[in-house]
Amino acid sequence: MLPDWINVRCPAPSEGHREAALARQSQLTKPLGALGRLEEVAVQLAALQATDRPGADRAPIILFAGDHGITARGVSAYPSEVTVQMLHNFAGGGAAISVLARTLGCPLELVDAGTLCEEPITGVIVDKPRAGARDFSIAPALTSEEVAFALACGQRAIARQAERKPHLVLLGEMGIGNTTSAAAIAAALLGCAADGIVGGGTGLDGEGRSRKARVIADALVLHGLEVGTPVQTVLATVGGLEIVAMTGAIIAAAQMGIPVLIDGFIVSVAALAAVKLNSSCRPWLIFSHRSAERGHGIVLDALGARSLIDLDLRLGEASGAAAALPLLRLACELHNGMATFAEAAVSGRTS
Amino acid sequence: MLPDWINVRCPAPSEGHREAALARQSQLTKPLGALGRLEEVAVQLAALQATDRPGADRAPIILFAGDHGITARGVSAYPSEVTVQMLHNFAGGGAAISVLARTLGCPLELVDAGTLCEEPITGVIVDKPRAGARDFSIAPALTSEEVAFALACGQRAIARQAERKPHLVLLGEMGIGNTTSAAAIAAALLGCAADGIVGGGTGLDGEGRSRKARVIADALVLHGLEVGTPVQTVLATVGGLEIVAMTGAIIAAAQMGIPVLIDGFIVSVAALAAVKLNSSCRPWLIFSHRSAERGHGIVLDALGARSLIDLDLRLGEASGAAAALPLLRLACELHNGMATFAEAAVSGRTS
Repeated sequence: MLPDWINVRCPAPSEGHREAALARQSQLTKPLGALGRLEEVAVQLAALQATDRPGADRAPIILFAGDHGITARGVSAYPSEVTVQMLHNFAGGGAAISVLARTLGCPLELVDAGTLCEEPITGVIVDKPRAGARDFSIAPALTSEEVAFALACGQRAIARQAERKPHLVLLGEMGIGNTTSAAAIAAALLGCAADGIVGGGTGLDGEGRSRKARVIADALVLHGLEVGTPVQTVLATVGGLEIVAMTGAIIAAAQMGIPVLIDGFIVSVAALAAVKLNSSCRPWLIFSHRSAERGHGIVLDALGARSLIDLDLRLGEASGAAAALPLLRLACELHNGMATFAEAAVSGRTS
Repeated sequence: MLPDWINVRCPAPSEGHREAALARQSQLTKPLGALGRLEEVAVQLAALQATDRPGADRAPIILFAGDHGITARGVSAYPSEVTVQMLHNFAGGGAAISVLARTLGCPLELVDAGTLCEEPITGVIVDKPRAGARDFSIAPALTSEEVAFALACGQRAIARQAERKPHLVLLGEMGIGNTTSAAAIAAALLGCAADGIVGGGTGLDGEGRSRKARVIADALVLHGLEVGTPVQTVLATVGGLEIVAMTGAIIAAAQMGIPVLIDGFIVSVAALAAVKLNSSCRPWLIFSHRSAERGHGIVLDALGARSLIDLDLRLGEASGAAAALPLLRLACELHNGMATFAEAAVSGRTS
């Protein structure tokens, strides 16, 4: 049973502010369109934020962590312990996203949405219904109650950030084994063959990747997942708690009128599930980067999404979203700060 | 006659620091290679700066402006007056690069390398042998003395910045008509048909673009330019003062051991000329973005260059280089600031 709040319609972006932003772009001292996608993203943020002065300064990062029983099947190059070790590293300031958040001035909220961690970690919010998703090669990963809990975990995280009126939020994840869960979700929702969507994750070789694809293909057959299976059933069967939490966070953010900057493959799969559960959240999503992980292009295409950057990143942790954030900030500064042709007394086109 | 300094060999990047940077990347708490091109650019900067702690904070922008007699042939959507009007706008803080420089904390040096401007503009350094390049549909654009002057103008600009020990420099340009000059240089140096390399510049329609291609093709025939024509002859015949100044700046920066972040089509053509004049400058070039201007991909390919971002920008003014600068900064922060597996007590690979 899906909680009722998931179905609440998200507000529409402001068409009036979109039109005003487009008009302003046509008056700034540059050939129309010469700032390309920086113009587009400024206009998009103006429409989403319903403002004449879009911004991307207040941009908290929420990182959801979870563990996966499927790691017992040899689907990752790293052991499950690394999830919790990395939670310590995030909190201690040594991980990539810690450095990026500090450099960019972004608050970093860490949520244990379902890791195997048993001890409290300073700086980590624990909000989980159980420790780790079950091994879906044997049984469904989550119960429907656990799915509902994880969706609400994402909603609670957004509600905490909403108090500070963010310009947008960045979502990221950590979880050894979660590219396997994400690939299984995407294969089921899109009707792709597992082999076409499975990538190397943290660094599997060719043999490891084949094993991972077989594990997913077998699980889809075992559980009878196919195109048309309800999204909540797919999430319960092969999902993970951090992935479902991000799906809930995406829908909740859009319902509260907060744009979401989507990270790589796994967050994009959470977004795919969110859009399939409640399509009115789609306009609120901005896609930051195209990952080197094989399935990401397929998922972006399914969402009709075009990412801003393509730098062969495949780390997760919201690192791609963080890398793209300066482009959003520059786009807003240009939109708000450039002179118009009239203000600068610059001649217009002759032809 | 080319000035002798152009031929002075540029130093080689530090292989020792490159190796040390690669070794450090392999110890940071992420799967090896998971930060993709951000790892590559940090390693590249470490080798160029011969340091264990690469940086991109001190990054002055030098913008060279020039005018072009070829605008008399209807090759631009804007009149020549716009070059000087935009110089005022750059100095006044209202142009795209003004906003970007301010936001990024980059000093912005404006050099009138050859515009039609007759009055001094506060904040603009005048360093030109004449006002505007000649209409190359009738006569060579520049004399060999003017080419030597412009190359030295670029060298002088780099020398001014070198005193402040920059981590790198960003180069940009402004000049109505300069995509025509740049396309003519590229067509001559690479032996391309003009029609294959000519783009819309500031916004020509299809008919305007065809006219522009004919103007270039006719000029190449008139002056007998072809593959194998000496680079200095090509620059004198169809060049422009701001383009030649950037060629000089690129070679001078590399000779002084300063990395150069290359902007779009026109700066890339200046870089192509620089590499053909003195190939030892090539390792010092970092390519920021792929422009929407048609010929840029051809020039990048000829240079064996891969840009960092591709956002349909086509403004010039160093705007693409400035947009990419945050990625270099984040790459350096990640390289310098992340914890190693040992420091963070995170387990390594199991497979």
